[in-house]
Formats: sequence, structure tokens, C-alpha cells
Amino acid sequence: MDKYLSARSALITEERKSRRDTIRIANASEEELQAEQIVRNLRKSETASIWSTEHEGIGNVFPGMEFLTARAVITKTRLFQLLCKMPKGALLHSHLDAMVNANYLINLALEQPAMHVRVNTRLTEESLGSVHPEFRPLTPHEYTNIKSLTSDKYELGAWVPIRSARAHFATSLGGPEGFDQWVFNALTINPTEAYVTHNTVKKIWNKFRTTFMVSTPLIRFVPIWSNYIREFFRTLIEDGVSYVEPRVNFWHKFMVGEDGEENVPHRQWIILFGQVLDEIKTQMKTQGKTDEFIGARIIYSTIRNVTCEELEWYLEDCISLKLEFPHLIAGFDLVGDENVLQPLIYYIRPLLRFQERQKELGIDIPFIFHAGETLGDGDAPDMNLFDAILLGSKRIGHGFSLAKHPKLIEICKERGVTVEVCPISNEILRLSSSMPAHPLPVLLNNGVPVALCSDDPSVFGNMGLSYDFFQVSFDFYVLVASEVTGLITLGDIARQSIESSTLDETEKAQALFSWGRKWDAFVKSIADGSTGIEREIASTDGFPII
Amino acid sequence: MDKYLSARSALITEERKSRRDTIRIANASEEELQAEQIVRNLRKSETASIWSTEHEGIGNVFPGMEFLTARAVITKTRLFQLLCKMPKGALLHSHLDAMVNANYLINLALEQPAMHVRVNTRLTEESLGSVHPEFRPLTPHEYTNIKSLTSDKYELGAWVPIRSARAHFATSLGGPEGFDQWVFNALTINPTEAYVTHNTVKKIWNKFRTTFMVSTPLIRFVPIWSNYIREFFRTLIEDGVSYVEPRVNFWHKFMVGEDGEENVPHRQWIILFGQVLDEIKTQMKTQGKTDEFIGARIIYSTIRNVTCEELEWYLEDCISLKLEFPHLIAGFDLVGDENVLQPLIYYIRPLLRFQERQKELGIDIPFIFHAGETLGDGDAPDMNLFDAILLGSKRIGHGFSLAKHPKLIEICKERGVTVEVCPISNEILRLSSSMPAHPLPVLLNNGVPVALCSDDPSVFGNMGLSYDFFQVSFDFYVLVASEVTGLITLGDIARQSIESSTLDETEKAQALFSWGRKWDAFVKSIADGSTGIEREIASTDGFPII
Repeated sequence: MDKYLSARSALITEERKSRRDTIRIANASEEELQAEQIVRNLRKSETASIWSTEHEGIGNVFPGMEFLTARAVITKTRLFQLLCKMPKGALLHSHLDAMVNANYLINLALEQPAMHVRVNTRLTEESLGSVHPEFRPLTPHEYTNIKSLTSDKYELGAWVPIRSARAHFATSLGGPEGFDQWVFNALTINPTEAYVTHNTVKKIWNKFRTTFMVSTPLIRFVPIWSNYIREFFRTLIEDGVSYVEPRVNFWHKFMVGEDGEENVPHRQWIILFGQVLDEIKTQMKTQGKTDEFIGARIIYSTIRNVTCEELEWYLEDCISLKLEFPHLIAGFDLVGDENVLQPLIYYIRPLLRFQERQKELGIDIPFIFHAGETLGDGDAPDMNLFDAILLGSKRIGHGFSLAKHPKLIEICKERGVTVEVCPISNEILRLSSSMPAHPLPVLLNNGVPVALCSDDPSVFGNMGLSYDFFQVSFDFYVLVASEVTGLITLGDIARQSIESSTLDETEKAQALFSWGRKWDAFVKSIADGSTGIEREIASTDGFPII
Repeated sequence: MDKYLSARSALITEERKSRRDTIRIANASEEELQAEQIVRNLRKSETASIWSTEHEGIGNVFPGMEFLTARAVITKTRLFQLLCKMPKGALLHSHLDAMVNANYLINLALEQPAMHVRVNTRLTEESLGSVHPEFRPLTPHEYTNIKSLTSDKYELGAWVPIRSARAHFATSLGGPEGFDQWVFNALTINPTEAYVTHNTVKKIWNKFRTTFMVSTPLIRFVPIWSNYIREFFRTLIEDGVSYVEPRVNFWHKFMVGEDGEENVPHRQWIILFGQVLDEIKTQMKTQGKTDEFIGARIIYSTIRNVTCEELEWYLEDCISLKLEFPHLIAGFDLVGDENVLQPLIYYIRPLLRFQERQKELGIDIPFIFHAGETLGDGDAPDMNLFDAILLGSKRIGHGFSLAKHPKLIEICKERGVTVEVCPISNEILRLSSSMPAHPLPVLLNNGVPVALCSDDPSVFGNMGLSYDFFQVSFDFYVLVASEVTGLITLGDIARQSIESSTLDETEKAQALFSWGRKWDAFVKSIADGSTGIEREIASTDGFPII
């Protein structure tokens, strides 16, 4: 019997050895252990009080359930509110065009007299859900004085000033608030789309694509661009993210300037990005909050639907920008649905040449490729994992299908290739039905470095990074109740995200130091009872929820 | 460039080396390669003609989608019809109490004058879905002449002869056919239960449990028992299964005899099982079909809700039966929902003692444990994997969460511990949302031996084993179109199931030889065009479906 129990404990230890957080847990401070226990108690208490009871109109409730259905419940939990305060390190996988709350973007657009809107199908109660607004800033001499998008007299395809379109939106369609809702719906995915009508990877990607068609002309307009980036930084900092490497889509060669002309080149986009970045950093410094924000660097991206020749242009463009703005270009990626667009192997010649060119020029623009964002096994997106790894990708975006590949897992572990895991995105794009079905634990138990990321929060409704941390917080190796995991593991993942960034060694050391200070304060606030969680757990019976 | 391509091909080869079917594919015969290509073409053709189009009333259709919604479509596909003819080897994970079509079981019950039925809640249109029939064979002096379960005069809890209950089932509830449907619904899980109202692991298990409460009193009645087992063998043989190791639940200490007395002991259950088995074998021999059926052996099971003391009784009972019927007892298991009942570690003392006892007696009753049938990571059912492996379990039932454990995967691979994978069961019990989300490829790519199993087909509606083979047939490593996998991999899995059985070496060699003969004939029938698939693929445009 004793022999059995010691063999058992040896096997469990052996298995856990491969996890990256094992040493971290073994060396946890007294305060971390206390905080860990408090958070575990909270999780347990909320599992019983919130996630095992029925909620009016929500259906089958369980921890880690479909995000869009659960969001209203999540937001009110004490665990979520706590995670909002956690220092989350770096956000390594996010698409700039889907990072600012849709309502905020609509309001930015409404401030612009140049912004016009049109439709090509008549708007009715029936068509409202399927007809999307098309936006465009016009040059002053193109401005129109058409009043309404919805009047009988509206000529399909004619541009209407956005403010007028909103003010005169038909009462039968909800008036001005109806206009806002219509645009909001076109910019976001709702639960019915995700879980009912569009419930396959292919169909939900189609909806997903349309949100970008609506948002891009709003964002790629200089007067909005800077404000948009400012809000992007502001909300991330507020959510505890101190560094970010957004993917910026450079597929359009120009954005529209203040004068309505589409002639603002890529270098100007980056100059504006850098200006806002400096402004925010100065501001944080003035407020004595330098630990809160380290900075940001852009992952240059284009869409994987270009030809090899076109890609060469983008790669050269990326090199020029790196030469001019070495501190603002973090890497290179190709974006768009891997299931239907070109696989990496299609671009192998220009990609290899890109690496040669860098050697010649003595610069370093690592690939940071999307790969394996698929349910498939051996299909094109899955095979992208092989090419991403062979091309030396610094990190892997999504890597959802990596869990199926023992050899590739081994390589990622050896080389420290971090997987940018986007739990909520994967679920809404129907790769996983809910968090418990997500392959994240396979990666963690194998010791592959991972970073939790939000991907496209303005479309998915997971603004910030706290929702993603929340969704996985129920999904950790719980072993036996006395073992410590959970909060410390989340902290280890947050810390790892800074390690996995493209910051240089000095910057990284500084960022880790800042993060460590914030982490210690966070842990202390839980351990010393100043968050009040323990009192709340004690009175759990009457836990107030929706 | 050439250097890149050869590195790429080396990495792919390296990764595939761990798969068990790699050598098999490398040594495939000319006919196998032809058949493989024909089946791949068929799959591709049906993916386009069937699985990418809309089907009235079925919603979002894709290969490997939720089984209960897709079944009507699957049944009509040419691929499914072909797989029905495939020799599938051994069925290694099935629960005897859920192996015969529910309608067939109802008909068996209707033949028995002793069989009575009652309800404890009044049956109305509203209550019909939630009130389950309770069956019991009575002794002749207990027989009643109450006519109807549904008349106003029916006294709740009174026994009604089943035939009379059916004949007088209220017209408002559908009359006799309404009775059949009511019982059928109580014995099976329908799509609304699986995917809407009971859409969590916990809730669907509750429904699942009730089906056994309804069926057990029907099956554990001697006159039905033998007929039930006969139909069990008949339908499996018809579906290409040539050997089976059903789990028989011995939790009830007696079954009801022909006289209505509940006094028939376990050894008698096995004698009757053996008699039907011999009868079928003789019959097959007479018909010159010895290759079609090798035999059957029982995995002795009880429910993991017993105390340690009670378990000792069952373990001793299992030993006595093994001593009396060495060729009919294959192993020992504990059944029931791992999420709520006792974990293996709870029973560690009696289980270790059981192994000691076997050494003393010179017998071998391997453990064949359910373990890891969970979405959890480190919870009790997941930890059962550690104990199953430490206790030397010959195979693992389900092992759904094994994919998360690199060290345990390594051990299973080294020791040849086969995982009994039940794809459709896992999906209906809400572990996987659909086949593409199932962890099977993780096990295959790691080279863990697997057997495909149906688990509880009469409850899940996946009668036979062809549906499970169909569901995974879309889920195989497809790599590039020129590579061969798919049919040959399915064949390799079927062959492995015989290797993983508890047959002794001589029996196994014979079974493999028989299987090989059938496999060759099956492959030949596809390759030589006698199945007519190629003609059908050619005329795919007008493929007739529902």
C-alpha cells in the first residue's frame, strides 16, 4: 500500500516536471501561497454559488461555458473583478483593427464631418441584420447633403453624411439609437451568430470578415487613427496590460488623410502610432506610473491572399520601415483565414529571400506567424505549423492544432517558441465549444510556453485581457485541493508573456522588474485582506448575482 | 529552396514516425492503395455534395458534426454504407445493457406476460417527457388485471401488465404507438436533450442514468436475457464485428427468473450467456462463416458507488466466476459517472488485494478500467488515469483526458496500453462538441494504440460500430492528397482491436488470420470496382441525398 502511494506520488511528480510553472510554484512566497488559497476558495465558492445554478434566460451554465452567453454573468463575478486588477504583462496577439470598443469607434466616426455612409440594398426591418453600412471619408468637394439612408427617396449607393444618416435613421428601425445598434451589430459577433446561425468555423469566419470590411474605412482615416490608437493604449493599461505587440494590417497601401484623399503612406501610419505612444508614455511618467506601461511595437502584417510578387513588395516595405523605425517594428506576419487563403509554403521563396535580405542588411525582423488555427489534422492550416517552425517563427499565433503534434511540441519546448493562445477567439470562431474543450492544458502540461491573448476583442466582446484570463482560470490543473496552482500559474503565464516579447534584453529586464513590482503589490492586496474577498466568501450563501 | 523542402519533408517524416500506421501504410498492397484512393475520392466527393450543402431542418452541416443531428444524413451516404461492410475486428468497449435496439427490447418485453409497468406520476401530454416507465416481471400470483396506465381510475404505483398498458394507452397520448414512443424515449437520448436542454456533461449524465433505470429490469429477466444476448451477437456480426468483450454489470446480485422470483445468481447469467454464444458459433460454423465470429468474453463490472467492503464481495465473486468460467471472464472494471462517484484511489486496498489473490490462485483477471472520461485536468476522473496505469490496467476505457498527459501517453505507448475510444459517446455526453474537436488525433499521432468503440449504442443511437468508424473517417491526418491514409488507417485500427483483446496468443493468431482474410476480400471488392463506388463518384453532381 505504502509502496503504491509512493509510486503514485512519484508518477504525478514526474508528469508535472514538464510544466513550466512547477518550479515557480515550488518557490512561491508565503504571500503568494496565501493569495493562491484565497483565490481558490473564491473560485470554489463561485462555482457553487454562480456556475452550478440556473440563470434566467442563459440556459446551461458551467464554468468556462460559451463566452458570449456567459459574459453578463462573468462580469459580475468577484473572480473576474479581481483578475481585472491583475498585472497581465504583454499582449502578444491582437489585431489593431479590432481593439477599440465598437461604440467608441462609432462615436469617433460621428465626430468627423468627412465621414459618409451608404448601402446598396434597401434597409428594412428584415434586411437590417444582413445589410452592412459602407463607410468612407470624402474630400470636401464630394460632401453630400443627402439626409437619410432610410427614406423612400434614398438612392441606393449614394453617400450620406454619417451624422445626418444617424439623425434621420427611420423611427421604424429605431431612430438614431437604431442606427448605432445597426452599426454596432455590423462590427461585432452576437451569441446567435456564434452559437446558432453561423455555428461552423467556415460560416463564422464569413461574418468575422464582414466586421473588418465595415471597420477598416473608419480606422484608416488619419483623424480617427490617432484617437483610436490612444484609446487602444488607454484601455489596455486600464486592464493591466503593460506592453503590446499589435498586428497592424498594411494590406491597403494608403490611408485617407484629413483632406479625404487616400494618399497617406505606411511610414506616416507608423509616425502617428509612435507619436501617440510617446504621448502616453510621457503621460504615465508624469503621473508616476512608469511600471504601468512599457510600450508597444508593431507586427507588420499583410493578408495571405496576395501573390508571391505582391508579397515581395510588402516584405521590402517592411524592411524599409524597420530601417526607419527600428524600435517600432517587432516582426512580420500574414493574416486572414488559413482555411481558405494561401498556406505559408505557397510563399516560401519570398519568405526565404526575406531572411537573406535581413542578413545582408544586418537587421532582425522575426517571423511571428499565424499557424494551426484549425480543427484539421494535416490540412493546410495545420501544415502551416511545420513551415512556421522551419522558418524559425519566434512565436506561433493560435497554434490551435499544435496539441496534435508531439514532435512539433518538442521543438517548441526546446526552442522556447511561445504559442499565442486566444481562448475566447477560438471559441467564438468555433474551434472549441467551450474552455474545458480547449487544448491549452495539453500545451501547459507539455511545458510549451504560452501567452494568453485576446485576438479581436472589439468583435468578440472580450475587451481587455481579463476575460481571457478568466475563461482559462477554471481550466487549470487542479490535482488535489492542497496543491497550489491557479493564481500562481496565471502569474507565471503573464510573466512569460514579457519574456516572449521582442523587447531587447535590457528593455525586457526593465519590463520584468516593473511587472514583478506590480505582481507583488497585487498578491499582497489579496493576501492582506484589503480586497475583501475573504469576507465575501464567508457570506457566500447570499451571493448576489444578476 | 531545395534545402528547405528536404528539411520540411524530413520533419514531416520524423513526426509521422510515431504513428502506428506508418509502417502499415509503407507496406500497403497494390489493392489497398487503389481502394484507399477510391475511398478518398468518395470522401472528397461526399464532402462537396453532402457536407457542404444545406439540408432542410438540419442546420449547419459539416463532416463529423454532432452525431444525432447528422445521423439521417450519414446513413444515406455511400461512405457509411461502405464502412458497414468493413471487417471491424473486436468491439472492446460496450455495455451489454445498452447494446440492443430499444424497439427490439420493447418487443421482447411485450412477449412476456410476467412483465408489468407502473408510474408514480400521472401521465399527461406535459409529463410524458419526464415521467419514466418502471418495469418489473411479477410472479404469477402477483399478476394484475389493471387495464390502463393512463385512465383516470389508474392508481399511481399500481402494476399494469405491459401488453394491456400498451393496448389501452390513452389516444390523447398516441395510443399503443404512443406507448412505444414513450418507452423508446425513456431508453434513448434525443438531439434536443443532447444539444439543447441537457447540454452539459452533468445534465446529460443524469438523463443517461435514467435510461438504465428503465432498461435494467427488462434485461435482467431470464426469458429476455437470452434473447437479448442473441440479438446483441446477431447485430454485431451483421455490422462486421467478429469478437466482443462487453462490460456486464453485476451490481444486482440476482436477476429475475422465469417464475418472477429475483433469485438467479451470477453464475447462471454466465451459463446462459455461454449457451447463446455456443449456439451462435455453431450456427456460423454450419453456415461456413467461421471467420465472421470468433467469440465473446465478459468484462465483470460493478458500479463505483459501492463501499470498499462491498467491492471485496464483488472481487471475490469475479474470482469465483473466473475459476468456473475461465474462457468467459476477460477482466474487471468499475462503471458509472467518474465525475460524481468514487475514484479508483478510494478502492486502492481491495484492488491491490485482488491482485494478490490472483497471484495466490494462479489466475489472471486484468483490470480494464474506465478512466479519464472527463473534460477536467487534474480532477478525480482525470486522476483515475494515473491509478489505472499504476494498477496495470490492460486497456483504458475512454481515456478522454489522456491527451493532456505527456508522461502517461509515453507509458501507454511503451506498454501498449490500448485506449478504448468512444467517439460518439463522448460527443453525446458533451465531452467533445463534434468529431473534429475530439482528442483522438493526439493519441494517434503519439502512437498510442486505440480501439474504436460504441459504448452504449442503444442509448446513443449509434447501433453497431460503423457509425463510430464513419465519424472518425473524416478526422484523419490528411497531409497532402498524394499520401495514403484513411481507409488503411481504419483497417489498422480494426486489426489493432484484436491485438488488444484478452484472447490468448493462439486464439489471437486465429482471429487475426480470419480478420485478414475478410479485410483482403473487402479491399478487393473496392479495388476491383465491384462496389460500384467509382461509377457513383463520377455522377456525383446529382448525388441523391435525403
